[in-house]
Amino acid sequence: MITFYPGPSKVYPQVAQYVQEAVASGIISQNHRSPAFVDLSKNTITTFKEKLGVPADYWVFYASSATECWEIIAQSLIQTQSFHIYNGAFGQKWAAYTHKLGIEVQAQVFEVNELLAIEKLNIPSKAELIAITHNETSNGTALTNAQIAQLRQQYPEQLIAVDATSSLGGVYLDFSQADIWYASVQKCLGLPSGMALMVCSPRAMERAKILNACNHYNSLAFMIEKMEDWQTTYTPNILNIYLLNRVMQQISSIKTIDEIIQKRFTNYLHFLQAETNLTLLCEVPEARSATVLAIKGSLNRIAHIKAEAQKQNIILGNGYGAWKETTFRVANFPAITDNEMVLLQDFLKSII
Amino acid sequence: MITFYPGPSKVYPQVAQYVQEAVASGIISQNHRSPAFVDLSKNTITTFKEKLGVPADYWVFYASSATECWEIIAQSLIQTQSFHIYNGAFGQKWAAYTHKLGIEVQAQVFEVNELLAIEKLNIPSKAELIAITHNETSNGTALTNAQIAQLRQQYPEQLIAVDATSSLGGVYLDFSQADIWYASVQKCLGLPSGMALMVCSPRAMERAKILNACNHYNSLAFMIEKMEDWQTTYTPNILNIYLLNRVMQQISSIKTIDEIIQKRFTNYLHFLQAETNLTLLCEVPEARSATVLAIKGSLNRIAHIKAEAQKQNIILGNGYGAWKETTFRVANFPAITDNEMVLLQDFLKSII
Repeated sequence: MITFYPGPSKVYPQVAQYVQEAVASGIISQNHRSPAFVDLSKNTITTFKEKLGVPADYWVFYASSATECWEIIAQSLIQTQSFHIYNGAFGQKWAAYTHKLGIEVQAQVFEVNELLAIEKLNIPSKAELIAITHNETSNGTALTNAQIAQLRQQYPEQLIAVDATSSLGGVYLDFSQADIWYASVQKCLGLPSGMALMVCSPRAMERAKILNACNHYNSLAFMIEKMEDWQTTYTPNILNIYLLNRVMQQISSIKTIDEIIQKRFTNYLHFLQAETNLTLLCEVPEARSATVLAIKGSLNRIAHIKAEAQKQNIILGNGYGAWKETTFRVANFPAITDNEMVLLQDFLKSII
Repeated sequence: MITFYPGPSKVYPQVAQYVQEAVASGIISQNHRSPAFVDLSKNTITTFKEKLGVPADYWVFYASSATECWEIIAQSLIQTQSFHIYNGAFGQKWAAYTHKLGIEVQAQVFEVNELLAIEKLNIPSKAELIAITHNETSNGTALTNAQIAQLRQQYPEQLIAVDATSSLGGVYLDFSQADIWYASVQKCLGLPSGMALMVCSPRAMERAKILNACNHYNSLAFMIEKMEDWQTTYTPNILNIYLLNRVMQQISSIKTIDEIIQKRFTNYLHFLQAETNLTLLCEVPEARSATVLAIKGSLNRIAHIKAEAQKQNIILGNGYGAWKETTFRVANFPAITDNEMVLLQDFLKSII
């Protein structure tokens, strides 16, 4: 089986060996208030920040899923109003979830084939938090670091929260330009599902402390209190923290990974153009995601590709929502090898 | 290192091998809406119910921690009022958490050395849910199946919710006598931390559907909807579900495990009496937990035991709360072997 599913996705093959180590060392049987856990947690977060270029004064928190991060943000960082900008299903879901939790939600929806014009945005100052999706897993689009920096510049007062679920760990992100970044570990970090990470700026932390929501076990003010000692508010997924630690030690720094991912993305583009009559769903070069490719074709062609892939034990991502029948998705995540990319291209060539 | 910590605790040594299988088979890279995941989830829950004697019409749900189960119960199964009965820190925390979430909480506190007299309870009919702790991890006490059955008989209308965090999978529980049972997998189930299980009666499910709380991703009505297809409301800890599956296949049925645990508990009792001047914190035989032993001694003696244990790489549970300095705790969980028990006893003999 080769999987190009955009999450849960291929895990680093080393994970099997790392788990052996984790069991043998006894770390996963250690209490989550023990010095052994604290050491592990501190080392993991420190290495994560180093490898991914997270500013020194930003904090990192563990959560159980990106979905939980939606809840943490809504319950701990917004009192009344948030503003959501999205062009796809996950951005929309985030807005809907926030609304369900009692927040007044305003939204600016844009098109898959539209480069978001930051200068044309008109975000009311009453919106305490601006929610954007760096990488929209459903349709293979992404924002650029430059767009996020421009947003920061235009709206210096409000908190900016970024869904980087399927890009964090795969491409270079300029964390300094936003306040909250979250991602689940089963995408670009190449780990088993069951954990998410939330990166917070000093301003986000300050805001959480001022609002001081602390009714929930995942209230950020309470999470900060525990994270002062590198701990969590409940027994965390210690095995996944250990695996994150080992993977962070193993990987190159994010700039190197970014180069590899961008190069492969370009390779895919050339391949699609030269060898197939398939195209990317998103036609605007600057708006394309490098980590999740949504590939478009006729209904029949896409159905044929999916059926053949299944026969050959190649797992592709289905299209999502409106594009369910006319696209398939391919993860271009760091744990996937160049060889696997070549195999996928050979397969596509062979059946087209 | 040998650990007797009552959670996270010793994992089954087979876990290392099961993870190899999980990585090799690709199951952990499968999407959580895929047929492969659905098969795994269905098989896991079915085997879990068989091995643990869960009634056929009860449902099982995955959560990320027992703490999350407190939240699920408060948000999805109580509108106004709950009644909590406890004699220790975890029962107290559950009551406090429920109160924080806006529920009117009444409580009946009893003593560690008191056999809870069910017939003397006076629970108002306004309390929609009665919360009890089957096994109080903080002080090594437990309720009996007979007590829970009596409670059920006396209060047939109200929901009964049971914290079985450190007993589920270790001793026989008569699930039919209560409506909600929850436990985390890192105690008697011998798995890595990062997941909890919640077992619900048809009445609990019906109640969740009537209240129809569905604002949160962990709202029970929403969880039920997804579990109709053996799925979850967010990407779950698929690796731990796989490990639970394999461990459920491996273990004996709960009646056999119960016998082993009770026999070992009796062995510990005889040992303490015959070879040491240590006693159990709880002096009432019927109120003692078989899975978590809180062992009492003078301040100096306990400090000495802890220091020596650390030197010899034996991890004991610290005392909890008021008993921090005068007790230590020993897990008597199924993944711990008879040999390890003997080693612990030899160690205690050698230093006393």
